[in-house]
Amino acid sequence: MSHTKALPLLDPEGQDGRGAAPCCPPLTERPMNAEEAETAARMFKALGDPVRLRLFSAVASHEGGEACVCDISDVGVSQPTVSHHLKKLKEAGLLSSERRGTWVYYRVEPSVLAAMGRLLTAPPAV
Amino acid sequence: MSHTKALPLLDPEGQDGRGAAPCCPPLTERPMNAEEAETAARMFKALGDPVRLRLFSAVASHEGGEACVCDISDVGVSQPTVSHHLKKLKEAGLLSSERRGTWVYYRVEPSVLAAMGRLLTAPPAV
Repeated sequence: MSHTKALPLLDPEGQDGRGAAPCCPPLTERPMNAEEAETAARMFKALGDPVRLRLFSAVASHEGGEACVCDISDVGVSQPTVSHHLKKLKEAGLLSSERRGTWVYYRVEPSVLAAMGRLLTAPPAV
Repeated sequence: MSHTKALPLLDPEGQDGRGAAPCCPPLTERPMNAEEAETAARMFKALGDPVRLRLFSAVASHEGGEACVCDISDVGVSQPTVSHHLKKLKEAGLLSSERRGTWVYYRVEPSVLAAMGRLLTAPPAV
């Protein structure tokens, strides 16, 4: 139940190279169970802060879907605050990071974004 | 800036029956500005709680996209707590409600769901 630490919506290890699978059905398909809701709520919560959302969209929309702190620090908060929020996004599994030389580069996990998008997919008109 | 109280992602009044327009571009399109981020973060935050998410999915997946409290109170919390969370979802613009006789019926705003889904739309592969 409580073993998922990173990338909670996905199981990147267990998918045999096919790309990761989403944890949860579309919200409109059936009621979520407690475990699914825990997992998905963690990611929505991470995006539930305006500064984090701006940083996330700054990374997501940056060339190549990747940015270093130096590229995205114009959101009106201090760099330590930027780093704090980037860490939170990383812990929620929404960003991955890699150090190259002086800078840490952040990258959006497109499969996570797609899984969240699927959660919110509206059903076909009835 | 701070006039949006309900349905923050949409402007249901101003769309002339064409359906409401989303507030924000896909997260991957360009960095969000402060106002867009405020608006969208409010809705993500509302879904950032496991109980709220379960209630929301219970309403969203219920027959006809509509449910009364009597239909969806099996999420393991008291009915006052259910009502509290439904109110929060309503304030965030994710649900609308209507009293009919004894019960209040909650309905998912499909256009809001669609707008949130668009926010998370991944760009075409580059």
